[in-house]
Amino acid sequence: MSYKFIDGGVTAPSGFTASGIAAGLKKNRLDMALVVSVVPASVAGMFTTNKMYAAPVALCMEQIKSGSASAIIINSGNANACTGKQGFADAARMAELTAESLGINSNEVLVCSTGTIGVPMPMDKLETGIPMAVKELSEDGGQIAAKAIMTTDLVSKTLAYEFEIDGKSVRIGGMAKGSGMIEPNMATMLAFLTTDADVDSAALQKCLFGAVERSFNRITVDGDQSTNDTVLFLANGKAGNRTLDASHPEWNRFVQAVNDIALGLARMIVKDGEGATKFVTVTTNGAANGEDALKVCRAVANSLLVKTSWFGEDPNWGRVIDAVGYCGAEVNPVSVDIYYDDFIAVKNGGPVGLDVAKGISKVIANDEFCILIDLNIGDGADTVYTCDCSYDYVKINSEYMT
Amino acid sequence: MSYKFIDGGVTAPSGFTASGIAAGLKKNRLDMALVVSVVPASVAGMFTTNKMYAAPVALCMEQIKSGSASAIIINSGNANACTGKQGFADAARMAELTAESLGINSNEVLVCSTGTIGVPMPMDKLETGIPMAVKELSEDGGQIAAKAIMTTDLVSKTLAYEFEIDGKSVRIGGMAKGSGMIEPNMATMLAFLTTDADVDSAALQKCLFGAVERSFNRITVDGDQSTNDTVLFLANGKAGNRTLDASHPEWNRFVQAVNDIALGLARMIVKDGEGATKFVTVTTNGAANGEDALKVCRAVANSLLVKTSWFGEDPNWGRVIDAVGYCGAEVNPVSVDIYYDDFIAVKNGGPVGLDVAKGISKVIANDEFCILIDLNIGDGADTVYTCDCSYDYVKINSEYMT
Repeated sequence: MSYKFIDGGVTAPSGFTASGIAAGLKKNRLDMALVVSVVPASVAGMFTTNKMYAAPVALCMEQIKSGSASAIIINSGNANACTGKQGFADAARMAELTAESLGINSNEVLVCSTGTIGVPMPMDKLETGIPMAVKELSEDGGQIAAKAIMTTDLVSKTLAYEFEIDGKSVRIGGMAKGSGMIEPNMATMLAFLTTDADVDSAALQKCLFGAVERSFNRITVDGDQSTNDTVLFLANGKAGNRTLDASHPEWNRFVQAVNDIALGLARMIVKDGEGATKFVTVTTNGAANGEDALKVCRAVANSLLVKTSWFGEDPNWGRVIDAVGYCGAEVNPVSVDIYYDDFIAVKNGGPVGLDVAKGISKVIANDEFCILIDLNIGDGADTVYTCDCSYDYVKINSEYMT
Repeated sequence: MSYKFIDGGVTAPSGFTASGIAAGLKKNRLDMALVVSVVPASVAGMFTTNKMYAAPVALCMEQIKSGSASAIIINSGNANACTGKQGFADAARMAELTAESLGINSNEVLVCSTGTIGVPMPMDKLETGIPMAVKELSEDGGQIAAKAIMTTDLVSKTLAYEFEIDGKSVRIGGMAKGSGMIEPNMATMLAFLTTDADVDSAALQKCLFGAVERSFNRITVDGDQSTNDTVLFLANGKAGNRTLDASHPEWNRFVQAVNDIALGLARMIVKDGEGATKFVTVTTNGAANGEDALKVCRAVANSLLVKTSWFGEDPNWGRVIDAVGYCGAEVNPVSVDIYYDDFIAVKNGGPVGLDVAKGISKVIANDEFCILIDLNIGDGADTVYTCDCSYDYVKINSEYMT
């Protein structure tokens, strides 16, 4: 499917405004974003499976049950996680403050937070910041909103497409943040999708689930999953199409667009992985089943030894096959093949020829490459996207809080 | 139980000789060790659960079935893993060469290899090296043997105790290697225990299993488990005690000594972890069951974000509780307590007081400290030993092979 790529991120679709401001949670940096639909929108959400989930996650889980929302208030710099009862009260107060300033009901407001865990929210800064964010709302606010949700991110992440449904121009936009604590089942990552398509809210949730499974749940930077991961999707219907659900003839077209925008944003997160110098696609084919394929992908993508060898451009395929061996998937040691891009390095569990190291070295010298592991047992297949582990990862994460 | 600490490692017990030589597998470094009992000894072994296990592991698994062995030939520099059929033939040839030189049967010889994966064994060097290793055997060879099995280890690791059983002086000695690719269920680690106690071979295996579970299977450096992990235990009976098994009144005394020597060696491996600057004991109490307790310990001990924060002495308890939340154990978010040594940092899932960061900082500034996580749900408890993750870990592992 081909789209017209457009600018604007979450404000690319009609009827959405956004803003990004400095509320004082971080020193001299943007730290608060607001996304608003001019009319109540269908809403879908997916959340961290971490049992220590943060207060705003609990609030969103509750709010999206109605299937409708109008605004998302987001702060960076403080995760409002492990903050006890006060944390829940603070998240609720953030929704109230936003609703008051916008003149809507507070159950129409979703709340997301990202940043340090276990520090009480500085509510005085939010009391003054939220009305400021409302004042700054603009139809061009998508880019600055994407900047305001960044933490250790080096670049802001937005994407938007335009395509047709029912002969109407439909737009879908998104923004994301995240670069560390990134592991399957999301991570310290937030992503926000908007569309002016008219979509049934139950169908929207199903569609988001599928897209997140293939994108944000298939990326890993360091194997740590956060307390705050959230993906929210608002569909406000301003495009004027017939309401989309599985019975609509162009439903799959819409689903594909959502999959693609989610994967596009997910890839941006990995490329901006803390200290990352390489983007690596790890694909497993021929596993006994899909679950085993995913186990292999995750073990390889999360192996610290594999990731450091990529950083050093060390052609150490032994570490890859070692991870295959311990991941718990059904493996026949003498039937494992490993490809680096088009180069066959390992056949039947052993190296191919004498120039294996040279062949691998050539591939992993690139900024982007694929590793394909074929277990040659069954039809199970999956793919995970990841990055290498560098000195800078250690540097960034040994100095984050203090 | 108190022991007399003695020198000598694997040659501390009576009737054992050992050697360490440079066979040319590594450049100008010791790379081959031999341990021999003057009489056939009871033997027990535990091995990697990695499905890509190396050829020498397969050989040992087979050889120990008889319950008896006399010699262990060990090389560093090449793991003889993922080397196909030739690898199995080469491991068998190593046993043969050793047996010929010693004048014993080749099924009395065990073989261990550690080093790079996927490179064929340079058998010419082993053909000349093995007879040399036999020639160098000595009752004082325990220390040099421990040096010869090192790979990225910075220090050699030996330990030996003397105690009494049946009024006879009994000795137990050991050596180990390993510092990276270390994770529960052993890792690129080898450990060799010897004793002059007379022990029934089935009882010896049970005893070794229990000791390894509490020691080598409770350490982690980087979460990667290798293809070559092996722990072997020889008991030659030269002390002249009545044969030990569970019916012997002093059986528990012997078991305790084996547990302690295994844990002692395991701790040495973690302290020598690649790039490690801190030794951390992670204990979980109050879990729903033992399995959950172990899940929590491993998640915290393997979290890259936690390990880098220790390296940076960053009092980031949020990363610890984050790992508790995603590890899959049953967790009640508002009942989690976390202690750093004696300092209570987290109570009921939230920080205690305003000086939490200061209190944690004081503890983690030390080279060694404990983190205790109490889930306050049930009686499940476990402990894992680990280290931090530093720049040097990345440096060592991005340059290992090339």
